[in-house]
Amino acid sequence: MKFLKTISVEEFRNILESIQKITTEEELVNIEESFNRVISRDITSNIDVPHFRKSRMDGYAVIAEDTFGADEDNLIELELIETIQAGDIPQKKLNNNQCSYVATGAAVPKNSNGVVMVEFAEVDDNKVLISKAVTPGTHVIEIGHDIKKGEIIVKKIVLIDLATIGILASCGIKEFWVYKQPKVSLMSTGNEIVSQDIKELEVGKIYDVNSVVLKKAIENTGARVKFLGIIKDDYNDLKNAMDKALKNSNIVILSGGTSKGEGDFGLRVLEEYNDIEILIHGVKIKPGKPIIFVKLKEKIIFILPGYPTSALSCYYVFIDKFLRKMSGFPLRDKFSKMMEVGERIYSTVGRHEFKTVKIQEEDGQSKIFPIKTGSEAISTMFYADGYIEIEELESIIERGDKRRVYFF
Amino acid sequence: MKFLKTISVEEFRNILESIQKITTEEELVNIEESFNRVISRDITSNIDVPHFRKSRMDGYAVIAEDTFGADEDNLIELELIETIQAGDIPQKKLNNNQCSYVATGAAVPKNSNGVVMVEFAEVDDNKVLISKAVTPGTHVIEIGHDIKKGEIIVKKIVLIDLATIGILASCGIKEFWVYKQPKVSLMSTGNEIVSQDIKELEVGKIYDVNSVVLKKAIENTGARVKFLGIIKDDYNDLKNAMDKALKNSNIVILSGGTSKGEGDFGLRVLEEYNDIEILIHGVKIKPGKPIIFVKLKEKIIFILPGYPTSALSCYYVFIDKFLRKMSGFPLRDKFSKMMEVGERIYSTVGRHEFKTVKIQEEDGQSKIFPIKTGSEAISTMFYADGYIEIEELESIIERGDKRRVYFF
Repeated sequence: MKFLKTISVEEFRNILESIQKITTEEELVNIEESFNRVISRDITSNIDVPHFRKSRMDGYAVIAEDTFGADEDNLIELELIETIQAGDIPQKKLNNNQCSYVATGAAVPKNSNGVVMVEFAEVDDNKVLISKAVTPGTHVIEIGHDIKKGEIIVKKIVLIDLATIGILASCGIKEFWVYKQPKVSLMSTGNEIVSQDIKELEVGKIYDVNSVVLKKAIENTGARVKFLGIIKDDYNDLKNAMDKALKNSNIVILSGGTSKGEGDFGLRVLEEYNDIEILIHGVKIKPGKPIIFVKLKEKIIFILPGYPTSALSCYYVFIDKFLRKMSGFPLRDKFSKMMEVGERIYSTVGRHEFKTVKIQEEDGQSKIFPIKTGSEAISTMFYADGYIEIEELESIIERGDKRRVYFF
Repeated sequence: MKFLKTISVEEFRNILESIQKITTEEELVNIEESFNRVISRDITSNIDVPHFRKSRMDGYAVIAEDTFGADEDNLIELELIETIQAGDIPQKKLNNNQCSYVATGAAVPKNSNGVVMVEFAEVDDNKVLISKAVTPGTHVIEIGHDIKKGEIIVKKIVLIDLATIGILASCGIKEFWVYKQPKVSLMSTGNEIVSQDIKELEVGKIYDVNSVVLKKAIENTGARVKFLGIIKDDYNDLKNAMDKALKNSNIVILSGGTSKGEGDFGLRVLEEYNDIEILIHGVKIKPGKPIIFVKLKEKIIFILPGYPTSALSCYYVFIDKFLRKMSGFPLRDKFSKMMEVGERIYSTVGRHEFKTVKIQEEDGQSKIFPIKTGSEAISTMFYADGYIEIEELESIIERGDKRRVYFF
């Protein structure tokens, strides 16, 4: 077992990176339930799209050569032998000097190789007078024009969006393989934490914020979350909850109980597991008391600080990326931007700080401003647009400096 | 009744704008189900947060004046009378020269007005030796420091995100009022359309793409969608489906059946309703055969073209914004950006074109390139990153021009 006490942000990130892997278990999913899932196997089309020759326009399917020479002064007469609406199966094949009416999207008859638009045809009983010549291929969509049978239409590790659903639907693919969602168990710990079901809050108690906020944040990474409730600072309660969580999930996330003052039950419970490979007690960051991280053989446990703003910051800085990579989801790094600092920002030397900031307009430019309430205030999270990183040895960021903002 | 035939994009937008309103019906929602709903009434906090005086640190709650003069060379001795963990209710009030241990987040005892951090205290049985003076207020978080009882914490017409959930949870608010989601009924029409349940596709038939793609797109605006199935080109079938849809929803969206070639059942069915206020048959856009739009007294019907790429373009250009405004959702305009055109783009004069484009890197810069397949190809939608608008009278956009890209 590797036991590490108070490591740097960089070291912690490297450890997370080194054990990172994508979920490999798969399951079949129905197309209607597939939005935001990740495809686990290349998908090929079983059909050509279109799988029959069809008309791009409302018009008359013809043998193109029959129309050669037609113009307004030289109408060419064809015999109308059939009317084919979208969805109809053509019943007759064309012979020379014959045509069939075809609606947009309708199948064209055998032997036809062009469509004359209705604008250039006049119907008289079962005769059609053509006033424009068409070249072979005009307004006919050939079989497989869009997608060919056997072609790979979606590659694996693609996140399913609207367009992916559209292309799968057009090939008639109703069920396909996706990666299983990582399973995360979530708990709030601490004798002071009570549920919103409690109407009258006693002195010393606070409402549980982390369960609702972290649950939703975790779900946004593509993982499935089960909230196991609020666990008291009691060794047996926590041990039982942890056993259950490890049995049912890949990842366990707790908030609260990282500091000595809170009883440190988390660490005591964790140290008892036999198959610990790495145990980290403390990452030098601000805000947040030490994060605890444990890797058992196939399972991972994160214990976050109890303050909601600290818990959420730690979550975004370390866990969000880890879970997204595991799910095959796009990372939040995309939602970051270099911006100018609008007001001097102070930081504590010796701790890598994740400073919550708000973005405000100044001189027509969006700039970074610090939020002045601390991590103990839930409103810090509410007013923040995102955070910036401040290195361990920096104490001041000057107005006018540029920093990367990671948006919440 | 106002009947309009083939109007311009601008006119159609103005009409939509003029009848636009936000949903006004409300319902109670549980906090856990509230993500991405829109708050319909200002919410005030029923409690102060924190609602008791608490410690920001692990340390000793003291009467600050007792510590004045304390330093490393002048330890001041206090009597330890109680240990208060987070969640505990303090049992004893301080008298002069007394202190209580307080964990981070724990309530501080009566009469205390400062906390000395554990680092500056040494415990000896029931004596504590203080090596640092604290001023009144040090490390004590006062009642209502974060949120005051009666304060408005979230205003109406706020879209609920993680931070909103956090602040509501911290005030113990479990249920609150949100706007009801607009109800949309969705149908695919056309004899050629079949479900993905059909394994063997006959000639003339195509799989239904619009139901799955439009359903998800509509859901993303905050509306609730019911898919009523694939409706044949039959007057009675469509009339029955439309009656049902109008009864159960605010908005009805059909795809297919806008052009004469397809039988025009949509228009025939619609014209029969008595309470039509506006009926528009045709908007001059490309891609897409005419859109049909009908406003009955309280209901709205959109009929979109059948081709998936056309249907989705029309949806994004007109309906998406309409539904988002109705739900109180942020508009997609946010997801647009001015970019340089990387290759000449041609357009048809006389129709306002929404040209699907892809974004590619050229000389280290992201540029706009046209997609060359047409709206009949589902792959057009698949490879497109977004669209640009081309005015009716423009026929060419030159390489190097700048255009706004609206991302899908």
